[in-house]
Amino acid sequence: MNTTVLPDTAPAAVTTGARARSAALEEEVLRSPGRFRVLTGDRPTGRLHLGHYFGTLHNRVRLQDLGAELFVIVADYQVLTDRDVADDLPGHVEELVLDHLAIGVDPARSTIFAHSAVPALHQLMLPFLSLVSVAELNRNPTVKDEIAHSRQSAVSGLMFTYPVHQAADILFCKANLVPVGQDQLPHLEVARTVARRFNARYGEGVFPEPEALLSDAPLLLGTDGTKMSKSRGNAVTLAASVDETARLLRGAKTDSERHIAYDPVHRPEVSSLLLLAALCQGRTPEEVAAGIGSGGAAALKGTVTEAVNEHLAPIRARRAAYARDRTYLREVLREGNERARAVADATLAEVRTVMNSRY
Amino acid sequence: MNTTVLPDTAPAAVTTGARARSAALEEEVLRSPGRFRVLTGDRPTGRLHLGHYFGTLHNRVRLQDLGAELFVIVADYQVLTDRDVADDLPGHVEELVLDHLAIGVDPARSTIFAHSAVPALHQLMLPFLSLVSVAELNRNPTVKDEIAHSRQSAVSGLMFTYPVHQAADILFCKANLVPVGQDQLPHLEVARTVARRFNARYGEGVFPEPEALLSDAPLLLGTDGTKMSKSRGNAVTLAASVDETARLLRGAKTDSERHIAYDPVHRPEVSSLLLLAALCQGRTPEEVAAGIGSGGAAALKGTVTEAVNEHLAPIRARRAAYARDRTYLREVLREGNERARAVADATLAEVRTVMNSRY
Repeated sequence: MNTTVLPDTAPAAVTTGARARSAALEEEVLRSPGRFRVLTGDRPTGRLHLGHYFGTLHNRVRLQDLGAELFVIVADYQVLTDRDVADDLPGHVEELVLDHLAIGVDPARSTIFAHSAVPALHQLMLPFLSLVSVAELNRNPTVKDEIAHSRQSAVSGLMFTYPVHQAADILFCKANLVPVGQDQLPHLEVARTVARRFNARYGEGVFPEPEALLSDAPLLLGTDGTKMSKSRGNAVTLAASVDETARLLRGAKTDSERHIAYDPVHRPEVSSLLLLAALCQGRTPEEVAAGIGSGGAAALKGTVTEAVNEHLAPIRARRAAYARDRTYLREVLREGNERARAVADATLAEVRTVMNSRY
Repeated sequence: MNTTVLPDTAPAAVTTGARARSAALEEEVLRSPGRFRVLTGDRPTGRLHLGHYFGTLHNRVRLQDLGAELFVIVADYQVLTDRDVADDLPGHVEELVLDHLAIGVDPARSTIFAHSAVPALHQLMLPFLSLVSVAELNRNPTVKDEIAHSRQSAVSGLMFTYPVHQAADILFCKANLVPVGQDQLPHLEVARTVARRFNARYGEGVFPEPEALLSDAPLLLGTDGTKMSKSRGNAVTLAASVDETARLLRGAKTDSERHIAYDPVHRPEVSSLLLLAALCQGRTPEEVAAGIGSGGAAALKGTVTEAVNEHLAPIRARRAAYARDRTYLREVLREGNERARAVADATLAEVRTVMNSRY
């Protein structure tokens, strides 16, 4: 899940193992997509941008279109993990739904729903919390990092327990595949642990052990040369206009060398722009660079702007069309919430049965 | 709530303040009982005994009969705070319902319900966890003590967060009065803090700050001279037969002095038996002692047995009658669950509205 802004923290060995397993999973998905249920999602904190798009969004649509069943969670409570108040939730939630419809998530096949609309999901927190120790929660490297980057003065109980909450997000719908970045591997490990311990204690086969589909997220920098971020205004959003896109990219940080070449180590900003154009055009960054030659930063920015605007044109057209139909948007979310509630109610009923707590 | 076996841990100053406030509350309850909603409850871990009865149960009925609205929670998830598995939940839950009906809790006026049947209650955990810091949870003296007395090898996330869960238990129904022992004061303080912070952040007046009605629980020892406990078999249960009661009390620990006198400091076992008889007969322990004089332990035990059996006779008769009607028992719980769900759904809807998370 793409819920946080984080450095990579998973040990190299873990990542290598997960990467090998991911490659095998990719092949399984291609062979029999129908046996996969995918849980993914975002926190409603603003419009999604090109970093999200090439990092995870396009992969969601790819999985859906292959035939996997997609659940997209709008994680509205998790907004509170690292800040005190969630601003303009309804607006941000609507933007997330719009972004997903725009990129091709199909509400007839996929389920988009809001966290807070599914009470039975949250009830799963209780038995799950009993299966995880405080020491384990303390050791979670991602939580440690998030605490370091938090905007709050003190670590809240919500931040501390949120890997368990995320386990509930994944397991409520018995998702068996979770597209993640490296930094999210420790969280997925908590979900796997919870599933394994629950099954061992209460009944084998209740929950699948969800597997990580490690995304090879390209390293796209923001226009200021730092990490792309919703809050820094350094990223082209899916919703941006052609002119806004041009303006933002025109101001992008580059360097003073006229000859444009792909060299991520020594020329990170230029290389990130080349990579962005390449991703949009389905070419390699080296090919894009060769086309620009000694045109300098201005030519590079012109190429990138054109590539981005061209690639996003159909997405933006769909987005604009959906944005005019608020009734439909609300309907998509209402139906998604209802579907998620039905799934959560069924899982909770099963959990209460195996825990012998139905009276 | 009577959910744990604990030493007194609240600082003396806190207790003194709470005691003064409790006395004032008692008068308010007598003046206008209708403005109080009381939340109380137990963990379903076995039959209730005389310690529970004189400690809290009779007070629940008194509050109900005065005209306060009573919610009795069967805290089935909290069984997992200090043990791995909850055994025979349906049986224990039924016993709790039976015990409450037997002492006079009236399901037409009061609500008896099971924790796990009310999903919306648990969802409140999420916003509430965001309002409490890990440092505050770490400082909770009751949790510290429970960790020391836990049967688990490691402290679970459920144990660590359960004061917040208990805040949800209390606040879901907007209870404003919670009968507690001293040891539970820190938990109630968490619920008060959560209510205060929630109101300050999202809207004044959403939650009342629940107040502690400190019970003057009499110090009744088990028949082995240690604290009465469900698991030690050293306590007369409400459900015990006349003969079982006589047998248990015949084996009670006393001392070798023939002259019976009330002296809790130097003769704790004899004094506890005197106190028990006194509570049953509405007399003082000194009066009971005077009636026995130099009759020795045998006479004391005879007096206590008679007093207990006489006092419990109508309760046991009602209990036996209800025990024959399992359909009715299930109906009581089903209706209680339904009522609690309606209350929780309404509170959650209000919470989602003030948090601006209805879409």
